[in-house]
Amino acid sequence: MKRFMDLPELDTGLVRELVATAKHLEKHPHSDALRGKVAGLLFMNPSLRTLASMQAGMAQLGGSSFVITPGQGSWGLETRPGVVMDGDAAEHVREAIPVLSQYCDVLAVRNFAKGKDLAEDAADAVIRRMADLSPKPFMNLESAMTHPCQSLADWKTLDDLDVPANEGRFVLSWAWHPKALTYAVPASTLNMAAQRGMKVTVLRPQGFALPGSVMATARALASKSGGSVFETDDVAAAMDGAHVLYAKSWCAPSAYGNPEADAALRASLREAWCIRESFFASARADAKFMHCLPVRRNVKVADEVLDGPRSVVVRQAGNRLHAQKAVLWKMLVDKE
Amino acid sequence: MKRFMDLPELDTGLVRELVATAKHLEKHPHSDALRGKVAGLLFMNPSLRTLASMQAGMAQLGGSSFVITPGQGSWGLETRPGVVMDGDAAEHVREAIPVLSQYCDVLAVRNFAKGKDLAEDAADAVIRRMADLSPKPFMNLESAMTHPCQSLADWKTLDDLDVPANEGRFVLSWAWHPKALTYAVPASTLNMAAQRGMKVTVLRPQGFALPGSVMATARALASKSGGSVFETDDVAAAMDGAHVLYAKSWCAPSAYGNPEADAALRASLREAWCIRESFFASARADAKFMHCLPVRRNVKVADEVLDGPRSVVVRQAGNRLHAQKAVLWKMLVDKE
Amino acid sequence: MKRFMDLPELDTGLVRELVATAKHLEKHPHSDALRGKVAGLLFMNPSLRTLASMQAGMAQLGGSSFVITPGQGSWGLETRPGVVMDGDAAEHVREAIPVLSQYCDVLAVRNFAKGKDLAEDAADAVIRRMADLSPKPFMNLESAMTHPCQSLADWKTLDDLDVPANEGRFVLSWAWHPKALTYAVPASTLNMAAQRGMKVTVLRPQGFALPGSVMATARALASKSGGSVFETDDVAAAMDGAHVLYAKSWCAPSAYGNPEADAALRASLREAWCIRESFFASARADAKFMHCLPVRRNVKVADEVLDGPRSVVVRQAGNRLHAQKAVLWKMLVDKE
Repeated sequence: MKRFMDLPELDTGLVRELVATAKHLEKHPHSDALRGKVAGLLFMNPSLRTLASMQAGMAQLGGSSFVITPGQGSWGLETRPGVVMDGDAAEHVREAIPVLSQYCDVLAVRNFAKGKDLAEDAADAVIRRMADLSPKPFMNLESAMTHPCQSLADWKTLDDLDVPANEGRFVLSWAWHPKALTYAVPASTLNMAAQRGMKVTVLRPQGFALPGSVMATARALASKSGGSVFETDDVAAAMDGAHVLYAKSWCAPSAYGNPEADAALRASLREAWCIRESFFASARADAKFMHCLPVRRNVKVADEVLDGPRSVVVRQAGNRLHAQKAVLWKMLVDKE
Repeated sequence: MKRFMDLPELDTGLVRELVATAKHLEKHPHSDALRGKVAGLLFMNPSLRTLASMQAGMAQLGGSSFVITPGQGSWGLETRPGVVMDGDAAEHVREAIPVLSQYCDVLAVRNFAKGKDLAEDAADAVIRRMADLSPKPFMNLESAMTHPCQSLADWKTLDDLDVPANEGRFVLSWAWHPKALTYAVPASTLNMAAQRGMKVTVLRPQGFALPGSVMATARALASKSGGSVFETDDVAAAMDGAHVLYAKSWCAPSAYGNPEADAALRASLREAWCIRESFFASARADAKFMHCLPVRRNVKVADEVLDGPRSVVVRQAGNRLHAQKAVLWKMLVDKE
Repeated sequence: MKRFMDLPELDTGLVRELVATAKHLEKHPHSDALRGKVAGLLFMNPSLRTLASMQAGMAQLGGSSFVITPGQGSWGLETRPGVVMDGDAAEHVREAIPVLSQYCDVLAVRNFAKGKDLAEDAADAVIRRMADLSPKPFMNLESAMTHPCQSLADWKTLDDLDVPANEGRFVLSWAWHPKALTYAVPASTLNMAAQRGMKVTVLRPQGFALPGSVMATARALASKSGGSVFETDDVAAAMDGAHVLYAKSWCAPSAYGNPEADAALRASLREAWCIRESFFASARADAKFMHCLPVRRNVKVADEVLDGPRSVVVRQAGNRLHAQKAVLWKMLVDKE
C-alpha cells in the first residue's frame, strides 16, 4: 500500500485486514520493525489525537517522526497551482512536499477544506495533488472530504463492541455547533458505515441534508456491501432500534462558504439538536454514542451522554493509535 | 509511584531516594530501560527547561515523547467542569486527558494558575482533576500552586553544594518583576526548604507576605523536619549567615486577580528589590544565589549576581534533567 | 570539530571531507552511532527544511532531538548583552544557551539578522556570542550573515551534478521579492562558490550590489582557491557560458533597515528580475537553476524554471539532510 487516502477506494477485504492488524498491534504494541524509519507529519490545521497518536505510534514501532506546522514555526504554505505568490505564503507545496519526502519514509498530511466553494472542496483535489508530489508512501490525516484514519478506527471500534455489520443500525446525527463545519468527518463516517454493510440513517434537520454527491457515494457503497442508506429529520424514527448514534455537525450545503447565512439557518436548532439522553428513547437499550472528538460539551452533546455508559468516544480515540499503526505497518513493513 | 504532584505529599524518605536516583542518573545518563515507552507532554503554558529536559530525559533513557500545546497546533482546552463550551476552547480535558493517556506510558502536564481567584488557585484543584482523569502515571510540570520538578532539582542542587539541611539557612526573597506573578514557585520552594529541615526566612516587602495558607503549610513541614520558617522585610536580618538566597517574584495577596492594584503596590519597590551583590553583605562569604529561571536580567536580578560566582542557576536547571529522569525511573522502571 | 559556524573559516580540505562524508551517508543513511544522543534545536525564526532534516538526520543516526521555538511555546529570548529586560523577552540567551546545552550533546541554533543596522548584522556577532555560551558542540542553522548548512549542501549538489570547480561558471543572481531580505544566504552562497574555486559572477541591478565587505571576503576566498569574483547588471554577459544560476533576493545596502526605501528602489524591477527561462539564453544548454528555498513562485522565479529540467532545488534540499548528518558525524562520532 503506497497511499492511504480514503476507505472507499480500498477493497473492503483490505480494510478488514487493516482492522485485523490494528487488533494485533493493540495486543502487541511494541516492535523494532521501524527502527531508523521516520514519519514526516505536516499539519496545515490543528490536531490533538492525530498529532499525538502518529508520534506515539511511530515510537512504539521503533521509529520516530518530525512535525511541521506551517504558520507556526514553519513558513506558510501555498497549495494552489500556478498562483503568483505575493501573499502571506512564502513556500509552495510543489517544493515542500517533495523536499519533506526526502527526509522521511512516509509523509502524512492534514489539510482541511477551505469551506468557500463546495464543488472545489467536494473534489478533494488538494490532498491528491499533494500525494502526487510525494515519491514516498502518503497518508491522509484528514482532507477536505474524508478522515480515513478516524473511519478505520471507528470501524475497529464497531468490531470491538460487537456491533453487527449487515444488521447493525447506525445513525449519523447532525448536532448544533457554533461554527459552520465542513463535510470531511460526516462524509467519511457515512461511507465507513455504508461500506461496512450497515443500515445507515442520516438524521438531520430540514436544510441540513448532506450534499447529493455525498449521499450518492454512500448509497453506491451500501448497494455493494448489502447495507442501506436513508435520511430523515425524525429523531424517534431514525433512532428506532439503533445500535449507534454518531454525532457530528456540518454546514448547510445551500449556505456553503457563507457562515452568516449558515448561522441564520441554525439559529433555532440549538436546543433541539444538542444530543441528550432523550435522543436514545427508541434505540436499543445498549445503544452506543460515538463522536470523533474534539466535542463541545453541553453545546453539541450534553454531559449526561458523554459521561454516561453509552459513550465510547475515548475508546474510538484509542483506536486511532492502533489503526494508524496498522496503516504504517502495511506501508512500511508488510508491503505488497 | 503513580503520581508526582507535590513534594510535601511524598514521604521525605522517598524524596531523598529520588534525589539519590537523580545523582545516579547524572553519572550514568544513558539506558535502554524505557525502550518503546512514550511520555505525553501537555503544555497549557510556555516552557523552555521543562519541555527540553523532559524530551531529553526520555530519549536518554531509551524512550521518546510527544508534545501537545493547546492553542498552538492543537485545540484550545477547557478545564472547568460542567461548562457550556461555546467559547474559544473546542475540547475539554475530560476527553483530552483520557485520550492522550492511551497514547503514552506517562502523562506530564503543565497548567499555571489562572491568577483571578486566590481561593480557587490555592486549592490547586485543576491539576488534580486532570490527574484523576488519567489512568496512566501522571507528572505535574507546574500547576497553580507547586512546581515539584523544580523543587526536586533544587533539593539535589542544595545537596550537590553541601548546603547543610538542618543547620542550613535558606532565604526565599521577593524580587521586583513587571508582572503580578502567582505562587507556584515561591510556595513550592518554601515547602522544599522547610521539608529539607532548613532554617527558612521569607524576605519580602510590606504587603507582599505570602498567603497565610502557604506559610502555614511550610511551618507544618518545618515542625516535622526540625526546620523553621520566619518572615521579615529586613534584608540584613534575613541574610545574616545565609547559605542561600533564592529569588522569586510574586503578587500581593491583597491584590490577587487585580494586576493594576498589584502594580501600584509594587511601583516604589523596583530599585530596592532588584537583587544585587549588596543583598549578600551579611550572608556567608560563599552564599549562593538560586533562581528557577527564566529571569529578567537587571530587572529582577542584576548581571553582577547572575554572572558572578554565587550564581548556581545553570546548575539548578541542569538538575531538572536528572530529577525528572529519577521520577520517570521510579514511575516506569523501579515501580513500587 | 567543536563548532560549525561558517564554511570560510574551515580549511577547504575539511569542507571536502564533510562533503565526502555526506556522500557516504547518503548511500548508508542508517546507523546506531548516535544512540542515546540528543540534539537541541533552537529556532529563533521559522524553518521547514532545517527543522525537518535535523530531526530526521538525528533519528537516522540513532539519536533524537528536541525543538525550542521562543515565542511559540517557549519564552521570548533576549540576545543583547547588558540590557534591562523590561520588554517582551522573559529570558536571556545568557541563561538559555548554557541551560539547553546541559540537555543535549550538540546545540544547533537559527538566529536571523535583525535587518536594522548593517554594521551590526555584518559582524554576525550574535550567533558567535551564543556559541561562546555553549560548552557543547554548536551548529549554526543560519545566522545574520551565513547559512553554512545550506552552503555545504550546495557544494555537494554541485559535486553531484559534476559542475567543475575551477572552470565552473557560477552566477549568483538577484531576484525580485516583496520584502527586503538580508544577506545570510547570498553571502554564504557567494563565499561557497568562491571557496570551491569557481568563476563567480554576482548579477544584480544597479543599487543592489552586495556590501563591500561581503564582496571583499569572497574575493579573498577566490584568490586562495584559484577562482574569481565579478559583478555586473548585464544578464546576458553574466550568464555567458554559465553552468549554474543561483537565485536569491536581497536588500539594497543603501536602504538597510528601511524597508520602505528599499521597496521604492525595487519598485520598477519586478518584471525584469523574476527569473525566467529567458535568463538562460547565453548559458550552457545544460545550465542548472539553484535556490535555497522557500521560493515565491511567479514572483521570484517563474513556474517554467522551477518545473523545468534545469531546476535542482529539490535535490539541494535533499542534500541538506546528508550535509547536516556529516557535520553531526564529525562533531559526535568521528571527532578530531
